[in-house]
Amino acid sequence: MTGDIQKVDGGITAPQGFVAAGVHAGLKKEKKDLALIVSEVPAAAAAVYTRNRVKAAPLIVTKEHLKTGIARAIVCNSGNANACTGERGYRDAREMAAITAEAIGCEPWQVVVASTGVIGVPLPMNKISAGIRAAVEKLAVDGGSDAAAAIMTTDTRKKEIAVQLPLGGATVTIAGIAKGSGMIHPNMGTMLCFLTTDVAMEQPDLDQALRAVVDRTFNMVTVDGDTSTNDMAVILANGCAGNAPLTIEDHAAFRAGLEYVCRHLARLIARDGEGATKLITVEVRRAASEAEARLVARTVAGSNLVKSAIFGADANWGRILCAAGYSGAEIDPERVDIYLESRAGCEQMAMDGEPLPFCEEKAAAILREEEITITLDLNQGTATATAWGCDLTYDYVKINASYRT
Amino acid sequence: MTGDIQKVDGGITAPQGFVAAGVHAGLKKEKKDLALIVSEVPAAAAAVYTRNRVKAAPLIVTKEHLKTGIARAIVCNSGNANACTGERGYRDAREMAAITAEAIGCEPWQVVVASTGVIGVPLPMNKISAGIRAAVEKLAVDGGSDAAAAIMTTDTRKKEIAVQLPLGGATVTIAGIAKGSGMIHPNMGTMLCFLTTDVAMEQPDLDQALRAVVDRTFNMVTVDGDTSTNDMAVILANGCAGNAPLTIEDHAAFRAGLEYVCRHLARLIARDGEGATKLITVEVRRAASEAEARLVARTVAGSNLVKSAIFGADANWGRILCAAGYSGAEIDPERVDIYLESRAGCEQMAMDGEPLPFCEEKAAAILREEEITITLDLNQGTATATAWGCDLTYDYVKINASYRT
Repeated sequence: MTGDIQKVDGGITAPQGFVAAGVHAGLKKEKKDLALIVSEVPAAAAAVYTRNRVKAAPLIVTKEHLKTGIARAIVCNSGNANACTGERGYRDAREMAAITAEAIGCEPWQVVVASTGVIGVPLPMNKISAGIRAAVEKLAVDGGSDAAAAIMTTDTRKKEIAVQLPLGGATVTIAGIAKGSGMIHPNMGTMLCFLTTDVAMEQPDLDQALRAVVDRTFNMVTVDGDTSTNDMAVILANGCAGNAPLTIEDHAAFRAGLEYVCRHLARLIARDGEGATKLITVEVRRAASEAEARLVARTVAGSNLVKSAIFGADANWGRILCAAGYSGAEIDPERVDIYLESRAGCEQMAMDGEPLPFCEEKAAAILREEEITITLDLNQGTATATAWGCDLTYDYVKINASYRT
Repeated sequence: MTGDIQKVDGGITAPQGFVAAGVHAGLKKEKKDLALIVSEVPAAAAAVYTRNRVKAAPLIVTKEHLKTGIARAIVCNSGNANACTGERGYRDAREMAAITAEAIGCEPWQVVVASTGVIGVPLPMNKISAGIRAAVEKLAVDGGSDAAAAIMTTDTRKKEIAVQLPLGGATVTIAGIAKGSGMIHPNMGTMLCFLTTDVAMEQPDLDQALRAVVDRTFNMVTVDGDTSTNDMAVILANGCAGNAPLTIEDHAAFRAGLEYVCRHLARLIARDGEGATKLITVEVRRAASEAEARLVARTVAGSNLVKSAIFGADANWGRILCAAGYSGAEIDPERVDIYLESRAGCEQMAMDGEPLPFCEEKAAAILREEEITITLDLNQGTATATAWGCDLTYDYVKINASYRT
C-alpha cells in the first residue's frame, strides 16, 4: 500500500483547510517560540499523552477539552513547559486556550494547548497573550514551516512532512511536525507531534489509528530513556478532502499513510537526539510475540553501552546480545543471530548466540556511517518490531551537564 | 545492632579458616588476573546470579555445583568472561573446577567458578591451569588483598572489607571482596562479590540472608543500567568461629553484619563506576510500599539526565521528579518533596511537587562534593529504599566508545 503514498511539500498546512503561523513571543531569546495551527472548520481530534505520572498542566487541560473529540486549533509555546506550576499552571493553560479561542472565533474547549521548556516557572502570560494575537494575524496556508520552527528547542533541524494518498475517491493529505525527545534547556524537554489531515473520518476510528501508529513509531524512539512530563501527539482531521465514507481497506490505507508520516518524524527525532552523531535502527525479527519484539528492540536501542560502542564505531556485538538478555523478554540466547548493516554493507556478527569470525575493517566501515541498523533474529516465532535511537556522545553529557547554570 | 559491628583488617581472609591468593596467570597484560579463595573445611555456600537471560558458562556450572549447598573454594579469573562460548565454555568451566579441586584436595562440585572479561572468546586453559596451580602455592591467610586485586578489571581501586560482631557466644567475622559493575574492556564487565564468614549457620538460613541482603544492596546499584551475563554474589560460611546455634535475634544481627559489608561494597562499586567522579545516593522515604520505594530510587539513580546534571553540579530537581514520574511507581507528584544533601549542607528543592525558592550558590556547593544524597519524600506511606549510582561523564563515553578496537 505504501506505493500509493506520495511525499508533498507544505508541511502541516498541506492538508486542505488548515492555516498556521509561528512567531517570536519572547519566551526564548531570539527564535520563534509560539506556534498556532488552525482548521477552518471543526475537526475530529485525538491525542495520546505522556505516561509519566507527572503531567504538565497543558496536558491535563487538553485532555479535558478533547473529551468532545472536536478541535479547531492547536496552540503551543516553547521556552516554558508550564509543568510543576500548581493551580496557577492550570489557570494559565486554560487562559491560553481562551485567548486563542477568542482570537480565532471558536470555543475554548476547541483549543488544544501544549508547552515545552523549563519546568517549575510560571508562564509569562503577557508575552503568551501578545504572541497568540500576533500569530493569529500571521495565520496562512504557507505558515506550516514557521510553526515547525516555533516548537523547536534544542532541535538542530525542523521536523516536518506531508504525504498524499488516494482514499474514498478523493486525494487525502496527512502531515505532521514534531520536536525532539532529547532532554533540553533549561530543565527538561519533550516529544511533541502535531498532525493534520483533511480526511473525513469518524473520531473513534481516528483515535484508534493514532494510538496504533504512535505505539509503533514515537513509542519506539529512545534518546535517553527519560519520559518527559509534557510528551503529546495530537491529530486533527477536518474532512476537507471530501472523501466518501472509508471502507475497511481505506482505513488500513489511511493508517499506512499516518504511519509513514510518524515513522519519518520518529526517525528525525532519534537522529536529532542531543549530541547524537548517528541514527541507530534496531530491527527485531522472528520474536515469539510483538510485545517481546518491542521490548528487545527498545532495550537494545536504549543501552548506554550499545550507544557508546556505536559512537566509537566499535563492533561490540556482545553488548547487543547482553541488552537483549536483560530486556525482560524470554529470549533463548543460544538461538540469537546478530547483524550490523549500513550503506557500507552488512556483516553477521553472531549465530546461535555465538561469535562468528568477522572482518574488523568491514564492521568498522559499516559503523562509521551515519545510519546504522542492528538486526537481531531471535529464531523463536514470527513477530517483528523496530526501534530508533542514537549514539551516546561526549556532547550529550556536555549539553546535559551544565545548561541550567 | 550496628553498634556491635566493628571493622577489622584482613579482607576476605579475616574470618577464621580461610586462605586466599591472587596471581598473574597471563590473561591480562600485567595485573593479577586469577583469584583463589579456600576454606580449610567444607563450608555452607549460597549464591545469587545475574537476571540476564544470557548466562555465562561459569554461572551455570556454579549453580549445578551449589545444589549441594556446600563448597570449599572459589576460583575466579579476570580478562575473559567465558560467555557465549558454547559447549566448549561449559567444558572449560568444569575443567577450572576440576583443576582447582585436584590441587587443593576436594571434589570438583565443591568449587565455585567465576569469570569476568571479554565475551565470545574461549578461555586459554593452559594459562588458567598454570595460574590455578601457582595460586594454590601462594594460598595464605594474608592473601585476601591479592585476591581482591586479581578480580579487578577497569576498577580503579580494590574493594574489600571485613567486620566482626559477637554472635552466639563467639566473635564472628564477615568479609567480602567485589569488582565493579561498569561495563569493561574489552566486551563487557560484571559485578562480582565473594563473601566469607566463619559463622556456623544452616545453609537455608545463609541462603535467605544472602538473598535479602543482595536485594537491598547490590541490586540497588546502577552504573549504566546494563546487567551483565556474569554477575554473581557468593557466600561461604565455614563455622570456624564455633558459635552456638543462632537465635532469631542472632540471625537478625548476622544479617545486619552482612548488610553492612555488602552496603560498603555496593557503595564502592557505584563510586567506581566507569568515568564516575561522584557517588550518588538516592533515598526514598514514605513510599506506599517497599517495591515502589525501590523502583523510584533505582530509576532516579539510573536516569542519564539526573546523572549528567550531577556531573555538572546543576541543581536540576525537575529531572529528579520527572524520573520518579516515569519509574512505574504510582506516586502522587503533588505530594513529593525533594532534598539535595552533601557534606556542604542540605537544601530542599521542591515541596508538594512545586519548586521552592533556593540558593543557587548553596545548591551548587552541595553538588560540587564527591558524595551527594538525593532524598525524595513521597508522603504516601512508611516504606523506604536506598539506591546508589554515579554521575555520567565524558569519560564514561570515552571508556565505552573505543576500547575494543
